[in-house]
Amino acid sequence: MTEFLENLVRGIPGLKITTDPDPIAQACTDWRKRYATTALAVVEPQTTAQVEALVKRCGEHGVAVCTQGGNTGLVGGAVPVADGEHATRPHVLLKTHRLREVLTLDEANLTLTASAGYTLHEIQEFAAAHGLLFPLSLASEGTCTLGGNLASNAGGVAVLRYGNTRELCLGLEYVNAHGERCGDLRGLRKNNTGYDLRHLLIGSEGTLGVITTACIKLYPAPNSRCVAWLHVRDIDAAVQTLNHIQQKAFHELTSFEWMNATAIDLVQKHFPAKAPVGPAGCDHVLVEFSSLGSEAALHDHVAGVLADLMNGNPAVMNITLTKNAREAEQLWALRENISEAQAKEGLNVKHDVACPVSRLPEFHHQALAAIEEAGLSVQPILFGHLGDGNLHFNLSAPSHLDAKVFLEQHQEALNDIVHSAILACGGTVSAEHGIGQLKRGLLRDITAAPTYRAFVAIKAALDPQNLFNPGKLLAN
Amino acid sequence: MTEFLENLVRGIPGLKITTDPDPIAQACTDWRKRYATTALAVVEPQTTAQVEALVKRCGEHGVAVCTQGGNTGLVGGAVPVADGEHATRPHVLLKTHRLREVLTLDEANLTLTASAGYTLHEIQEFAAAHGLLFPLSLASEGTCTLGGNLASNAGGVAVLRYGNTRELCLGLEYVNAHGERCGDLRGLRKNNTGYDLRHLLIGSEGTLGVITTACIKLYPAPNSRCVAWLHVRDIDAAVQTLNHIQQKAFHELTSFEWMNATAIDLVQKHFPAKAPVGPAGCDHVLVEFSSLGSEAALHDHVAGVLADLMNGNPAVMNITLTKNAREAEQLWALRENISEAQAKEGLNVKHDVACPVSRLPEFHHQALAAIEEAGLSVQPILFGHLGDGNLHFNLSAPSHLDAKVFLEQHQEALNDIVHSAILACGGTVSAEHGIGQLKRGLLRDITAAPTYRAFVAIKAALDPQNLFNPGKLLAN
Repeated sequence: MTEFLENLVRGIPGLKITTDPDPIAQACTDWRKRYATTALAVVEPQTTAQVEALVKRCGEHGVAVCTQGGNTGLVGGAVPVADGEHATRPHVLLKTHRLREVLTLDEANLTLTASAGYTLHEIQEFAAAHGLLFPLSLASEGTCTLGGNLASNAGGVAVLRYGNTRELCLGLEYVNAHGERCGDLRGLRKNNTGYDLRHLLIGSEGTLGVITTACIKLYPAPNSRCVAWLHVRDIDAAVQTLNHIQQKAFHELTSFEWMNATAIDLVQKHFPAKAPVGPAGCDHVLVEFSSLGSEAALHDHVAGVLADLMNGNPAVMNITLTKNAREAEQLWALRENISEAQAKEGLNVKHDVACPVSRLPEFHHQALAAIEEAGLSVQPILFGHLGDGNLHFNLSAPSHLDAKVFLEQHQEALNDIVHSAILACGGTVSAEHGIGQLKRGLLRDITAAPTYRAFVAIKAALDPQNLFNPGKLLAN
Repeated sequence: MTEFLENLVRGIPGLKITTDPDPIAQACTDWRKRYATTALAVVEPQTTAQVEALVKRCGEHGVAVCTQGGNTGLVGGAVPVADGEHATRPHVLLKTHRLREVLTLDEANLTLTASAGYTLHEIQEFAAAHGLLFPLSLASEGTCTLGGNLASNAGGVAVLRYGNTRELCLGLEYVNAHGERCGDLRGLRKNNTGYDLRHLLIGSEGTLGVITTACIKLYPAPNSRCVAWLHVRDIDAAVQTLNHIQQKAFHELTSFEWMNATAIDLVQKHFPAKAPVGPAGCDHVLVEFSSLGSEAALHDHVAGVLADLMNGNPAVMNITLTKNAREAEQLWALRENISEAQAKEGLNVKHDVACPVSRLPEFHHQALAAIEEAGLSVQPILFGHLGDGNLHFNLSAPSHLDAKVFLEQHQEALNDIVHSAILACGGTVSAEHGIGQLKRGLLRDITAAPTYRAFVAIKAALDPQNLFNPGKLLAN
């Protein structure tokens, strides 16, 4: 054990430190198994005070701190950097899952305050036990943590109604690069007293501080829920459908998910779930509505809005409306199993892009046309949170070719095509997954120079030793 | 004209520059006429390109830039600093009202993009002409500008439903301290690509850049609206009423305004408006509901929720529900004329405080008890956005004393009492008005040292010459 580690053990009573190679290697491998890195130790603090002491000690010894929540990120942000100038720096991996000091709720203020280590699912359940809703919802909710959700500004399936993690956070506490506790947990809905450090920390991917606690917004739990499955001609019709529903039922609309035919065919190939019967080859839309009123009132309202939509509209071909929670779950399973169905098919190239909803069809058509023009006959498995302008534009190798060879050969060209198309449509190359180490070069290349210089200046101002997650988000 | 100004005139074609003392003095006096300062010139750019050139030139010559929108701010943020080390620096006053290059709307994306110089009212009207709602709403909306709303993170009467200006902005363009255009106007609802400069600029009160254009969120315009006036026993009953309504009609609830008896008596003394008849001496609550459904359906729903509230609840004594828009306007006039009625009565001490809704009664009782204990028999004119935890806790001199003398003698003590009470209840001393030059010393005194150091570091990183609004927000 190095002097630094002995110092840590002695100096911070109760701090759990692991220096065995196996658990270190496991913790330093990311969710997608793209990055297998290492660290001096895995440290698992239980208190914010331990985090403060740890960061101070790391600063004194020049040891970098990589913070990890549930390790479910998709861009290598939660494991030490694998290449570039910072890959050789000594790191500790700070796992936040034992940070569980605080879990309280203020019903009259509609807020919940929790330590960073609670999983999203635990927080949802705690709110639900009080008849309240924490609306953030994503596939990894059983594993991902509140701290990770905040650090990555997680999105998910209810952003359309309730916003991203950013919009759900009223305040946070973090440990800065000097090992000092900063921020606030007051749960204020109005507070104009200086620069908004909260929003600077949210989405900063562990590069500006270690988020230890947060105060988040709650909502009354809906009393009724209703899911519609629509067969629509194409993505253009899906956008028109969204706009129609927003005019009539904006405040009941909770999710609006679009899927192309290939995506749904694939799920039905690998899973028992069956989509409602409709014309072959068309696109699919899943819409969720919820309200504080009765099931019957919501159902009637939605049925009216959708009947109105179909009336004389050949682009919307079929509508199925669920009658109970079980039916709703069955439809959601189709959407939620796309990624896994795709994994069963083998390798693919994933893109997490967004642009204004109004320009999604243009992006979709341009990207597919450019892929065809380049002679790359991929299978597009396209789906996503259309209501937020966010698509997961995933591309699989043609079934008759070796996927690994095809992708090694064409992945870069496919990325270039998709990224060029989304940028040309006023979009972004990372809607909800962030930058991490995967896209740091891309971020530098596509960001306007004055904006990128502002990023670098802020990082230098708040973390002058580049202690937190070096080599992430920023390219150097 | 100095060399600098000649340079400006020659170097930036089309830039309007005024060097006459009278218009300068007028522009350099704040809304409340607390600060009468001066500047080398008033400059009125019409384009972002002119702002870029102007800021570059100011940087070269070390001339400070004070940006002003509608000059309706209440903390002296929009006029040059009147005292302290930066008061002697040469300033230009940059008025943004001629920045009207862009005003467009993307209906399918529910976004509006506008230059900083448009007034809030113009933007509301432009959205309304397309059947859409920009929900930001405040007393000064005919004069205040979009740029000023963003720089000060304006609040107002619909924050409960739609959030502050911050929550309504999807992106902004600004000119940084190097005279470079930064930011984006893409209108993305999801975009995790680097630090959130947008939220850093919003609420930074002109100290980090000059906001020139913004992309903001729109909503479908409500089809129905309904206002309820409640007589309640006290502020405790008002908070219970809010919680009851949030459980039953969260998504229709738009505003929740509380007023003490003195405030409403004062309005009725100075204005013809009459409050609904109810028991004497109790508090008043104005609640607005709105929806995309029919007037009749909304009225029935609200009537049911309120009947349920009164049932066996002695703390809610009377409810009046409006039947049409005219009645609703009459009730709103009572709320909106409080400030003016107060002005007619003479001088008073204003406080713009907020804390968690759950702790508002505690704050209210503690502050009034402390004032009484200090032997200061003020008249409390209390009202505000209770739904946001935000009260305007204003105190008038006793009617038998000379207000000016009383306030000169006791203003500081009253401020100390109110600020101590709100901080003790986990609150803030500036909910929606900001810091400007009025509260910069207070901000420094009450902010935790590591947080204040982060403010200073960010300012130095992004504006190393301290060009933008020196002496505002930060104490040095």
